Amino acid sequence: MHVVITGGAGFLGQRLARKILEQGVLTDSANRLSTVDRLTLVDVVPANDFGDARIKSVVGDIADAALVRELIGADVGSVFHLAAIVSGQAEADFDLGMRINLDATRLLLEACRAQGNRPKFVFTSSVAVYGGALPEVVQDATALNPRSSYGVEKAIGELLVNEYSRRGYIDGRVLRLPTISVRPGKPNKAASSFASGIIREPLNGEEAVCPVAPETRLWLLSPRGAIRALLRGHEIAGDALGDSRTLNLPGVSVSVAEMVEALRRAGGEDAVARIRWEADATVARIVGGWPAVWDASRALALGLEGDADFDAVVRAYVEDDLRGGR
Amino acid sequence: MHVVITGGAGFLGQRLARKILEQGVLTDSANRLSTVDRLTLVDVVPANDFGDARIKSVVGDIADAALVRELIGADVGSVFHLAAIVSGQAEADFDLGMRINLDATRLLLEACRAQGNRPKFVFTSSVAVYGGALPEVVQDATALNPRSSYGVEKAIGELLVNEYSRRGYIDGRVLRLPTISVRPGKPNKAASSFASGIIREPLNGEEAVCPVAPETRLWLLSPRGAIRALLRGHEIAGDALGDSRTLNLPGVSVSVAEMVEALRRAGGEDAVARIRWEADATVARIVGGWPAVWDASRALALGLEGDADFDAVVRAYVEDDLRGGR
Repeated sequence: MHVVITGGAGFLGQRLARKILEQGVLTDSANRLSTVDRLTLVDVVPANDFGDARIKSVVGDIADAALVRELIGADVGSVFHLAAIVSGQAEADFDLGMRINLDATRLLLEACRAQGNRPKFVFTSSVAVYGGALPEVVQDATALNPRSSYGVEKAIGELLVNEYSRRGYIDGRVLRLPTISVRPGKPNKAASSFASGIIREPLNGEEAVCPVAPETRLWLLSPRGAIRALLRGHEIAGDALGDSRTLNLPGVSVSVAEMVEALRRAGGEDAVARIRWEADATVARIVGGWPAVWDASRALALGLEGDADFDAVVRAYVEDDLRGGR
Repeated sequence: MHVVITGGAGFLGQRLARKILEQGVLTDSANRLSTVDRLTLVDVVPANDFGDARIKSVVGDIADAALVRELIGADVGSVFHLAAIVSGQAEADFDLGMRINLDATRLLLEACRAQGNRPKFVFTSSVAVYGGALPEVVQDATALNPRSSYGVEKAIGELLVNEYSRRGYIDGRVLRLPTISVRPGKPNKAASSFASGIIREPLNGEEAVCPVAPETRLWLLSPRGAIRALLRGHEIAGDALGDSRTLNLPGVSVSVAEMVEALRRAGGEDAVARIRWEADATVARIVGGWPAVWDASRALALGLEGDADFDAVVRAYVEDDLRGGR
């Protein structure tokens, strides 16, 4: 079985690749355990192949139809479509966001359809599909009302993955991820970048800017939890998903103030002092429109798990990344 | 002010054109009353120009980017985007549905954006954006879960019209129309075609096939009501729409059995005897997934009106169409 990961050079893509190769098998759309003998990581920059002969790194533009047709051959059993233009950048550059978040998703779906073997297709979506006036706890049946370009593009992707599944072109699943925290590495152009930065930078002895008020509530998942969710989300039998291929993943609901308290427990007063509070109205508007908690009972019933609490999230970062762990 | 109507040769497009020329003015996106001096009707077949010099009929494919760029010049103040591949046909020919219902909508929106003058953009959507398990009365905040390709394409169009409006590229409004009944003319490939046919054909002395059970409930609007709604929906000030540009229009909720009773009152036993009951599982599945009633209070508050009852709907058909009326 050949597996394709878009955004394969990104930190989630890289961790997912390593995990898939470690376990060596995935369940295909006919519910048979299949050996993964090829893993293609496509991204705009070269992906690390970890010296594993099964991995091929492809550098290219996933909105390029010819490249996508070449990527998705008849041996492709699963696609993890993780590549995206993040929220802040999609808001700043509408055309770029539409091109990667919408057009490329459609090209991938069309390429899968053309193969005719109904591959599994895991699409990551986001809290950003919600917006406007929301109930205190967002339910599966709460209407989407995205208030950002990124959210609109993800919502359209969700509709397409559901539709291509309904028509039998793919065996799709949409995983609505909470905001991922704590991401390793550098800040990015996501509006939610601070949700990692205010923990990561202070623990690394660096200054971080917090653009939102302490009472802002977020719905978070650790990278560890995200990888677990991507794998489990892939393994669920299509039949178990019924009429909707979309799952709201479990997260932890915390305020920025509570995040800072967890930072204090992990890194002391010095760490907390490294946060500079500097309001940014655009970020506050985008992030403030996202749900701070949603009902994840369907995902939980299907075996998808979140983190215990935000202290566990910080601990996972310290273990996996800060100490030079994998 | 130049007005463009896609699907301008269709029966709604033709009636809308006549009505716009009759009143001679429309409100532009800056809330100024503007004289309509040009009206372009674009369709795959020539539109009737009623001998009015203001009308220009353009025959062409609205999924052709060059044609769309030519259509939407800097003088365009309003677009009524009515053209669509209907539900039954979009289900049978996925590529055609995506091309007209999605790609063409996007081309039109992009052409409006390129002009930079924020034209009004009226997009007609449908009950088909809903599906799956629905509450008894669908609310504005009920999640969309379309179970047909047509419904998915309309739902994506809604997201795009909202997004282009949010970004200030257009002054958009989405009118979710109930099923239109009684349409004049011949049956078409819409799954809901019977909702007109079982009244129209018997009143014209012809046989009609009813593919669904008598207890099937529908949410209906007369052509007269639809034209009224398109005009009123266009005239509402953008500010009055707030965070959502989408309106669930008022309709009448009737069962097929109740429709047959209204036919009996209008045309007698002979008319009722002309209905042949012949179940069609595909049509029943598509139509059965649509809401039979939704909360239209927002639209009502904004001055959009439905029909009094189904007898009034039948009467409108008899007056406007059966008696050779306009």
